[in-house]
Amino acid sequence: MYPSIRIPPSEFAARMGRLIDHLASRELAGAVLFDAAYILYYADFAFIPTERPMALAVSAGGERALLVPRLELEHARGEALVDRVEAYPEYPDDPHPMEHLRRLLDDLGIRDRVGADDDGYPWVLGYQGPSLSALTGAAVHPLRPFVEAQMQVKSPAEVALIRESATWGHLAHRLLQRYTRAGGTETEAGQRASHEATRAMLDALGPLYQARSAFAEGASAGYRGQIGRGGAIPHAMAGNVSFMPGDLLVSGAGAAMWGYHSELERTMVIGPPSDEQRRLFEHMLALQQSAFDALRPGVPCSDVDRAVRRQYEALELLPYWKHHSGHGIGLRYHEGPFLDRGDHTVLRPGMVLTVEPGLYVEGLGGFRHSDTVLIGEEGMERITYYARDLASLIL
Amino acid sequence: MYPSIRIPPSEFAARMGRLIDHLASRELAGAVLFDAAYILYYADFAFIPTERPMALAVSAGGERALLVPRLELEHARGEALVDRVEAYPEYPDDPHPMEHLRRLLDDLGIRDRVGADDDGYPWVLGYQGPSLSALTGAAVHPLRPFVEAQMQVKSPAEVALIRESATWGHLAHRLLQRYTRAGGTETEAGQRASHEATRAMLDALGPLYQARSAFAEGASAGYRGQIGRGGAIPHAMAGNVSFMPGDLLVSGAGAAMWGYHSELERTMVIGPPSDEQRRLFEHMLALQQSAFDALRPGVPCSDVDRAVRRQYEALELLPYWKHHSGHGIGLRYHEGPFLDRGDHTVLRPGMVLTVEPGLYVEGLGGFRHSDTVLIGEEGMERITYYARDLASLIL
Repeated sequence: MYPSIRIPPSEFAARMGRLIDHLASRELAGAVLFDAAYILYYADFAFIPTERPMALAVSAGGERALLVPRLELEHARGEALVDRVEAYPEYPDDPHPMEHLRRLLDDLGIRDRVGADDDGYPWVLGYQGPSLSALTGAAVHPLRPFVEAQMQVKSPAEVALIRESATWGHLAHRLLQRYTRAGGTETEAGQRASHEATRAMLDALGPLYQARSAFAEGASAGYRGQIGRGGAIPHAMAGNVSFMPGDLLVSGAGAAMWGYHSELERTMVIGPPSDEQRRLFEHMLALQQSAFDALRPGVPCSDVDRAVRRQYEALELLPYWKHHSGHGIGLRYHEGPFLDRGDHTVLRPGMVLTVEPGLYVEGLGGFRHSDTVLIGEEGMERITYYARDLASLIL
Repeated sequence: MYPSIRIPPSEFAARMGRLIDHLASRELAGAVLFDAAYILYYADFAFIPTERPMALAVSAGGERALLVPRLELEHARGEALVDRVEAYPEYPDDPHPMEHLRRLLDDLGIRDRVGADDDGYPWVLGYQGPSLSALTGAAVHPLRPFVEAQMQVKSPAEVALIRESATWGHLAHRLLQRYTRAGGTETEAGQRASHEATRAMLDALGPLYQARSAFAEGASAGYRGQIGRGGAIPHAMAGNVSFMPGDLLVSGAGAAMWGYHSELERTMVIGPPSDEQRRLFEHMLALQQSAFDALRPGVPCSDVDRAVRRQYEALELLPYWKHHSGHGIGLRYHEGPFLDRGDHTVLRPGMVLTVEPGLYVEGLGGFRHSDTVLIGEEGMERITYYARDLASLIL
């Protein structure tokens, strides 16, 4: 019944089983999760968080209930892997939706010793409401560290979706590279590449495909303003820059795939690179290679970042450092663990991370490749397979 | 120096002045704001929230400081209307970014009696960190109600940006209507309309334009799956449905304009509508008209929603009700106040809201127009001016 690339219901049941085991180990009466990524992870229900709160409640005995606004009732009943779906009429309404949550928790026998990701629904888009502890009259036990750790290790089915995402991210990036030329604009190249890649993906995967992401629809590629000298400012929002000969570019591409993401970024040059561009490009490659070399199970994330920083120092590149070496990726386009000297999470097989040390040179621009990699039983494997060498990235 | 359609620096100064007056009235030593919309509102600095925390700190004496990751330092120094920008190296790093915030607050003389939007940075994308109260050793005074109330009343410059957004949302919608035809797909029509409208907008506005929104880039129009019988589920995520003769459609269109948004939604039919489609379409128009008639300054939002609900009752349409009558809109595509029986906010001139009562009929589909309206000195004015009548919306 389920299309073959989707996470199977048995895997959702296994995820939920681990959460319920955790509740037992902490002697908690139940869990309340508000985070959309967590609800997607445990209950296979995708939504974009708004001011209308949603909550997944799980009792220690394993009963799973989803609270949604009336607006989402049929959608939730049709999709969520839970035992029951309860709807409140509206937000803010009277009584407030949190009153409905309180009643639902009572009904599930979750009265004290409640675990939760947050002490109440986060105040997004003008939402205001009481905290969960005010509602239940007891302090809540934090569940985020457990849930985040569980989500960090991907199953084979999750890795397969991230690989599928990478395939269509590659197509979008290939088209972006093809359509980027001096005189054209960022918006035109990015929209055309994203549009065509998405259509090809939808035509190819057909009913196998759903985006299910709050971050992206379909496949996409673009520059987010990281063009020419503007490339010295990473993660800028998109402008509408025109390309010029000699421009140094930092691209980004990916595709939402049943909620999962991959990340592919490349440094490219329009026309023959200058000697300085060549030198820094090769240094950037060496930095990324030093991370690849350090990535293996059993190693703390902080050690990987320290190895990369030693390479910055050895090559006298620290003035051009602006960020750590990478981050986890999965249902969120950024998530833990972080390849950062302050993150001592030990790498485990199944973790999926981006590897993207960068160089940012005022007056010249930015140099950064980002690859998505999988930690294996021994070392690591690149999931993104786009060419990394300069010759392949001169337009 | 500033392009003419942008909010002028004097208006940002006035906004900040009101916040500082509020701190004085509550005898607070300072404010800490983490919410990206609030930082854009007071400091003219746009960013997409990630696991790297940002914070705007304002002392009672009026000193304004922005804490950002190293990654955003030049961007923030170039754009934010603050007295100083401080950068921490990375997240999570060691010491944690919140340690840098603690030192900055010390430096600004903000030690106790701190006001804040949240008790710490929200845990997005795997972020974990201490609460602000743990950091400062004192309870924090909630500032959200004040800030939200301030943002709800738009200035003439803000209304002008929402009008500009509506113009380009109209173009996208016009193109969507033109490109929607039986046999085509949702993705194709939506992407083509959005792409062409965005390019026209960029060509027309040129350097006057920036999106500055975390929710949208450029102009867009689409159906988000609200096609045919799927339209009975409002706010669904986009699928890739093919259009069929007789399909009932609910569209959505808008454009990000220096952070501001408008909302335009229309119910359309492919080919001649059935009698039942006609009947429900006319009822939906009547419901929207009842809201228009009730909207004027001095009236509580709850009264407007109650007037609309009376209309549902009078027309025997309550079984098809799924949500309240509308919501505020501005820097967020949804925000308070809400046209909801539980929201007793009194309407004031300058408030901008959507008006969108809907009918959702199982087996038939959804009927909803959404218009963006401005509360004036007397009644209200429609900002979105797209045709509402059925004859104009048959494809």
